[in-house]
Amino acid sequence: MTTPEQQAQLEKLMRHALSLASHGPITGGNPQVGCVLVDADGQIVAEGWHHGAGTPHAEVDALTKLGAGATASGVAGIAAGLTAVVTLEPCNHHGRTGPCAQALLDAGVSRVVYAVPDPGPHSAGGAERLRAGGVEVIAGIAQADAEEFLHSWLTAARLQRPHVTVKWASTLDGRAAAADGTSQWITGTAARQHVHEQRARADAIVVGTGTVLADDPSLTARGDAGELLEWQPQPVVLGRREIPADAQLRQHPEKLRHIDGSDLNAALSELFEAGIRRVFVEGGPTIASAFIAAGLADELLIYLAPKLLGGPKVALGELGVMTMAEAKDLSITELRPLGNDVLIVARPATETGA
Amino acid sequence: MTTPEQQAQLEKLMRHALSLASHGPITGGNPQVGCVLVDADGQIVAEGWHHGAGTPHAEVDALTKLGAGATASGVAGIAAGLTAVVTLEPCNHHGRTGPCAQALLDAGVSRVVYAVPDPGPHSAGGAERLRAGGVEVIAGIAQADAEEFLHSWLTAARLQRPHVTVKWASTLDGRAAAADGTSQWITGTAARQHVHEQRARADAIVVGTGTVLADDPSLTARGDAGELLEWQPQPVVLGRREIPADAQLRQHPEKLRHIDGSDLNAALSELFEAGIRRVFVEGGPTIASAFIAAGLADELLIYLAPKLLGGPKVALGELGVMTMAEAKDLSITELRPLGNDVLIVARPATETGA
Ligand SMILES: NC(=O)c1ccc[n+]([C@@H]2O[C@H](COP(=O)([O-])OP(=O)(O)OC[C@H]3O[C@@H](n4cnc5c(N)ncnc54)[C@H](OP(=O)(O)O)[C@@H]3O)[C@@H](O)[C@H]2O)c1
Ligand SMILES: NC(=O)c1ccc[n+]([C@@H]2O[C@H](COP(=O)([O-])OP(=O)(O)OC[C@H]3O[C@@H](n4cnc5c(N)ncnc54)[C@H](OP(=O)(O)O)[C@@H]3O)[C@@H](O)[C@H]2O)c1
Repeated sequence: MTTPEQQAQLEKLMRHALSLASHGPITGGNPQVGCVLVDADGQIVAEGWHHGAGTPHAEVDALTKLGAGATASGVAGIAAGLTAVVTLEPCNHHGRTGPCAQALLDAGVSRVVYAVPDPGPHSAGGAERLRAGGVEVIAGIAQADAEEFLHSWLTAARLQRPHVTVKWASTLDGRAAAADGTSQWITGTAARQHVHEQRARADAIVVGTGTVLADDPSLTARGDAGELLEWQPQPVVLGRREIPADAQLRQHPEKLRHIDGSDLNAALSELFEAGIRRVFVEGGPTIASAFIAAGLADELLIYLAPKLLGGPKVALGELGVMTMAEAKDLSITELRPLGNDVLIVARPATETGA
Repeated sequence: MTTPEQQAQLEKLMRHALSLASHGPITGGNPQVGCVLVDADGQIVAEGWHHGAGTPHAEVDALTKLGAGATASGVAGIAAGLTAVVTLEPCNHHGRTGPCAQALLDAGVSRVVYAVPDPGPHSAGGAERLRAGGVEVIAGIAQADAEEFLHSWLTAARLQRPHVTVKWASTLDGRAAAADGTSQWITGTAARQHVHEQRARADAIVVGTGTVLADDPSLTARGDAGELLEWQPQPVVLGRREIPADAQLRQHPEKLRHIDGSDLNAALSELFEAGIRRVFVEGGPTIASAFIAAGLADELLIYLAPKLLGGPKVALGELGVMTMAEAKDLSITELRPLGNDVLIVARPATETGA
């Protein structure tokens, strides 16, 4: 059992590990994980984080800091007596790297503290392997913080489909375009720049054929001088209609994926299989409404412009809601001005249903 | 000419006068006005404010404080050498009380400082009368603060029609009801209580016959225990259809006014003639849209609930906007959470439009 003081110290170390985790990329399929190695006096002796798919996991990254040039799994006992504080349960699978649980065992740590259990069907079981190897394991330290930090990755891991953010921009009366179809620009530059930053945090960006045919968007993530950002999400188009040969999307730095159909679950499975964990749905109204109606929207990003349009072009159409009691209840996680516009971030009020 | 120090001191006194003004009622047709009388050393010797229609104006209220029982206009020279700092240009007309400009002259003030000129066609001219009487007059001190404070009353005085606030409650996707017409409750208790407080700040509350027939609302201003608030706005119904004999509106403490027609300008003129300066338009969607389309909405009060409904029941319908360039541009003056809901207060971005 840990005393309240020990608990508080571990929480502090875990928050530090979370801040290390945030140095890693949010995109690319792997979780952002951080790790600190602490001696018996509670002093940090090494720090590590996961730098992205194909690179060492956070635990191994930290272990390698203990001896110059040593790779952790090759140096038995290098971490003897240390505590590893790691944001996610050490993995138990042989991927592109060996299982972290084994690396920690080999390195001789005496205690492993983690925040969130690994939900992966292939990677879970690290804690058991460590306990079986005689290591003390403490789970659930600063778990709420870590769950929030890893929210989208955990959603994807648990549901075995990508985490889905649905974005739309509308006027205060919920219109996405004027009666004649004109929609440039509903929101101002700050909101549009925010959209680009969100694109750069997604593995894929999804639109319907309707948007491609109407707007011919490029769907690249760009900086405010128009330059391409470092990370580009893969562009994905849903729907049966053909994408014109000269569509701007075909110039996207990432290969265009056209999913010829309307089965959203099948589309998400295909994307998950391809390693995509974060999908950014940019519309149009038909696709956005379809994701929400199907309960497949894990997060909503709503940009409200200080304008009124009235008329027929609503930002969301049919959601399959017939009566008030069936309304899709949300909980707002962010509300703030963004230039002259308003940003609202929301999630389904419960984990089921959007 | 005033020095920067004198200017700063006058602004401070004016802000104090504005805070006195706010003790008076916002409803009832008259402006909220405050006045301080200051001696040559800048010390406040008397304070006053307007307590509502039929009672002395702020200047006279302050003058009466100088001598026990004295009525200002009756005591010549009682304010000799003093400066009157008053939020609104002293009036020049004989209403239920005499003109304040004359009262100040009679009382012998040497200087009058005010923030906002009186826009009333019958009451303006006070500054000229004072100057003609040999009093120094300084206008425009802390004018922006005072204009904001008196915004709705000044709008009414300038446009010679009531100031109009249009309120609606919708989901984040702009729906005021579910497909089957159910709409209770879109917003939570905090937002609904806020609506009651806004009703109590209006002289009249306006709905269309559609809302009366669909909802049979009582349109009283109530506290959170359901009790009637002290001030009740007059209920006004617009439209040709009959109001049922047993409508709850007929139990309203203020007499129901049915304006049998659809000419909004005529309706507002009728209300202005009746002394109504602040109209609170509570819907439904047809009436709200009509006021906005006609450019007759001076302020919008939008309650957004963290819900999605989709479907046909939009909170605003047709606004006569065909293309993006014709959008009704707004400027948001308030944005904040209200319980689980979001409150947005906005005004037309320019004084014309929306
Ligand atoms: N304000 C905003 O945030 C925003 C964002 C994007 C676009 N827009 C505007 O939206 C307009 C285009 O709207 P839209 O609704 O026609 O386009 P959309 O939602 O991009 O595309 C609709 C198409 O998606 C396909 N689809 C694939 N799976 C579907 C499913 N499960 N359910 C329904 N459809 C599915 C169908 O294409 P097939 O018929 O080919 O199978 C459908 O016609 C443009 O004017 C654009 O400017 C606005
Ligand atoms: N979410 C909210 O904030 C909110 C607020 C209030 C009501 N509601 C809902 O709104 C629904 C009723 O909506 P509604 O749109 O039918 O009712 P409404 O806007 O209250 O009434 C519409 C009627 O107003 C009359 N009218 C007078 N002047 C007009 C003008 N210049 N232009 C157009 N109409 C004018 C017409 O009546 P005549 O045909 O009789 O001439 C018209 O049919 C109800 O279900 C209620 O629950 C929602």
